[in-house]
Amino acid sequence: MTYEAPVNRQWTLKQRPNPGPISDSCFEFKDVPLPSLKEGEFLVRNRFLSFDPTQRGWMERDTYLPAIPLGGVVRALASGMVVDSRNAHYKVGTRVTGLFGWQEYAVGNGNEAFRTLIIPEAVSDEAALSVFGMTGLTAFFGMEDIAKPKEGDTVVVSGAAGATGSIAAQIARIKGAIVIGIAGGENKCSWLLEKAKIHHAIDYKNENVAKRLRELAPKGVNAFFDNVGGKILDEVLLRLSLKARIALCGGIQGYSGDADASIRNYMSLVITRSKMEGFLISDYAPRFQEGVTALAKWLSEGRLCFEVDVQKGIENAPETLRRIFEGKNLGKQVLAI
Amino acid sequence: MTYEAPVNRQWTLKQRPNPGPISDSCFEFKDVPLPSLKEGEFLVRNRFLSFDPTQRGWMERDTYLPAIPLGGVVRALASGMVVDSRNAHYKVGTRVTGLFGWQEYAVGNGNEAFRTLIIPEAVSDEAALSVFGMTGLTAFFGMEDIAKPKEGDTVVVSGAAGATGSIAAQIARIKGAIVIGIAGGENKCSWLLEKAKIHHAIDYKNENVAKRLRELAPKGVNAFFDNVGGKILDEVLLRLSLKARIALCGGIQGYSGDADASIRNYMSLVITRSKMEGFLISDYAPRFQEGVTALAKWLSEGRLCFEVDVQKGIENAPETLRRIFEGKNLGKQVLAI
Repeated sequence: MTYEAPVNRQWTLKQRPNPGPISDSCFEFKDVPLPSLKEGEFLVRNRFLSFDPTQRGWMERDTYLPAIPLGGVVRALASGMVVDSRNAHYKVGTRVTGLFGWQEYAVGNGNEAFRTLIIPEAVSDEAALSVFGMTGLTAFFGMEDIAKPKEGDTVVVSGAAGATGSIAAQIARIKGAIVIGIAGGENKCSWLLEKAKIHHAIDYKNENVAKRLRELAPKGVNAFFDNVGGKILDEVLLRLSLKARIALCGGIQGYSGDADASIRNYMSLVITRSKMEGFLISDYAPRFQEGVTALAKWLSEGRLCFEVDVQKGIENAPETLRRIFEGKNLGKQVLAI
Repeated sequence: MTYEAPVNRQWTLKQRPNPGPISDSCFEFKDVPLPSLKEGEFLVRNRFLSFDPTQRGWMERDTYLPAIPLGGVVRALASGMVVDSRNAHYKVGTRVTGLFGWQEYAVGNGNEAFRTLIIPEAVSDEAALSVFGMTGLTAFFGMEDIAKPKEGDTVVVSGAAGATGSIAAQIARIKGAIVIGIAGGENKCSWLLEKAKIHHAIDYKNENVAKRLRELAPKGVNAFFDNVGGKILDEVLLRLSLKARIALCGGIQGYSGDADASIRNYMSLVITRSKMEGFLISDYAPRFQEGVTALAKWLSEGRLCFEVDVQKGIENAPETLRRIFEGKNLGKQVLAI
C-alpha cells in the first residue's frame, strides 16, 4: 500500500503582465504539498475564488498593497471551509472568506492583515463574496460617503452591470435618484432595466455615450460612480451639474495600459465646482457592519438584487480573470474550484 | 471753435480665438462716444486693466459666465476712478474695481452681477486688483477650504510665481507647510526663494519635475494648489500622499487647446484615497471680507508679499494678455491705461 500525500494545486505569479490582455505565461500551475498547521492556524479548502480588477494592479506593482512577489501564489479573495484547525475560533466546518489566493488550500490564523471572516449561516458563499463582500461594500460606502445621491439627483454609474456597479446603481435608485447605468451589450442593459430596475441604460458598445448622456441628463449629472475611467469618465466630466461628486472607484479601462485611459475634461471640475475623489474599501473596515446591515435590509425587502457569474475549475483561473477585463461577466465573477 | 466730443477707446471681440496663441485678429480697437448717464449710474475712468487666464474661456465659449458676445467689449476686471456720477454711493473721485472691460471708460450702477467695489483709502489700485482682488482671494479660499495645508505638510503650488500661485504658496508657508513652488525660469524661482521665502522652487523649463518632486517630497505631497493642469498635474498625481487634497484652480496649459493638457495618472486618487476639487472664487463672495482681513494682517506683519507686473498703454491689451499665457509675468499682470 502506497501513501499518497495530500496535494495543493496552486497558481503562482511567474512574470508581471505587460500592457494588453494578461497572458497565460504570467502564471505557473503547480502541485505543492499541504502545509502542516502550527498552533493557532487553520486550513481552508477554497470553494470560490473572487475575481476583481484590482488584482491586475497587485500583479504589476506596489499599490495600496505590496505587489505579489514573483513565485508567490496569485493573491485573491476567496471563500472556503475550514477542514482542519488548531484555532478554537475557526472550527472545522466553518465557512470563511479571506485573501486565500488561487489555490485549493490556504492556511489562516485569524490575525491576517486582511482578516479571515466567518460567513454567517444565512449567507451563501456567493453572497458573501459579492453583495456582502468587498464589491458590495465598495458600492455602499462609495455611494454613502462620496457620491451621496439625493432624492431627485441624476446619478450615473459606469461598469453598471459589474459586481460593484450593479449594487451601486441600485443603491442610488433606492436613495431616490434617477439612475443611468453604462454597460457593454444588450444583455447587460436589459438586466439593468428589468432586474436591477434602474431608470436608463446606455450600451457603450452600441450607442453614442455623449449623445445619450445629453438626452438622459438634460440638467446634468449630480453624482457619478466610476468603475471605468478613460473615455467614459471624460464624457461624464462634460455633463456635470454644479457641485457634482465623482466617486472614483476603479479605472478598468486603464488597467491594461490602454492609451485611451487619459482624460482631458477635468477642468470641468472647476467650472462646475465639483470634486473627484478616490476611495478604497479597506479604509472602511471599522464600518463594514453598517454596510452589511443596510444591504441585508434592502435585499430582504426585495429592493436590491445581485448576480454572480460562476465559472468552473481551478485550471481556468487565468481565463476567468481575463473575463472581467473583457467585460464578459454579468455581476460578480467567481470560479468554483 | 469746434467742439470735440469725448471719446472712449475700447477693444471689442471680433472673433473667438483658435487653439494656440490668441491672435490680434480676434480683436478690434475703436473709438466710440462716451455714454450719457442715467439716474443711478456712474462713469469710471479705468486706470489698470487686470489680465487673468479665465479671460480666454470667456472669449471662447459659455463657461460659468456667458461667452463675451462677438462685437462686445472684451470682458476684464479693472480698477478706475469715478469721474461722473448720478449715484450717491459712488461719488466722483471714488476709486473702484469692477468688470469694466478693455476700454477707457465704463458705466456702472452698483447693482452689477459682478458688483463694483469701492477701494479703501489705504489700498493701492495695484493691491486691490491683486492680493486683495480675485487672484489673492482665490489663493486664500482655495487654500483655506480645499487644499487645507497643515503644519508639517508638504504642499506643491504650480504657477507659483503667478498672481494666484504666489499668494497661495506664501499662505501654505504661513500655515506651517513645507512649500514647493513650480515656476518657469530662474528669475521666478529666485523670487520664490528670496522674496516669497518658500522652501523649494522647481524650474519646470530647466529641471525634470518628476525627479525634483521625488527628491523634495520624499514622503509625498499632502496638498497641491494647481494653476496649470496637464503634465505638471500628472506628475504630482504620482507623488500624492494618503488623503491628499488637490485644489484645482486653473489649467493654463490646457487653455490654448494644447494636446498635452490630458492627464493619465488620476487613478492615483484611488490608491491614495485623495480628492481633486474645483472651485471658483465667485462662490465665496459672502466671505470676501474674511479673506481680505487675513491677507491684510499677513501683509502688515511682513509675512506676505506680492508683485505686480505693470505694462502700459491700452493699445497693448492683446499683447499683454498673451504675456500671461507665455508665462512672461511675475505676479499679477496689469496694464496701466
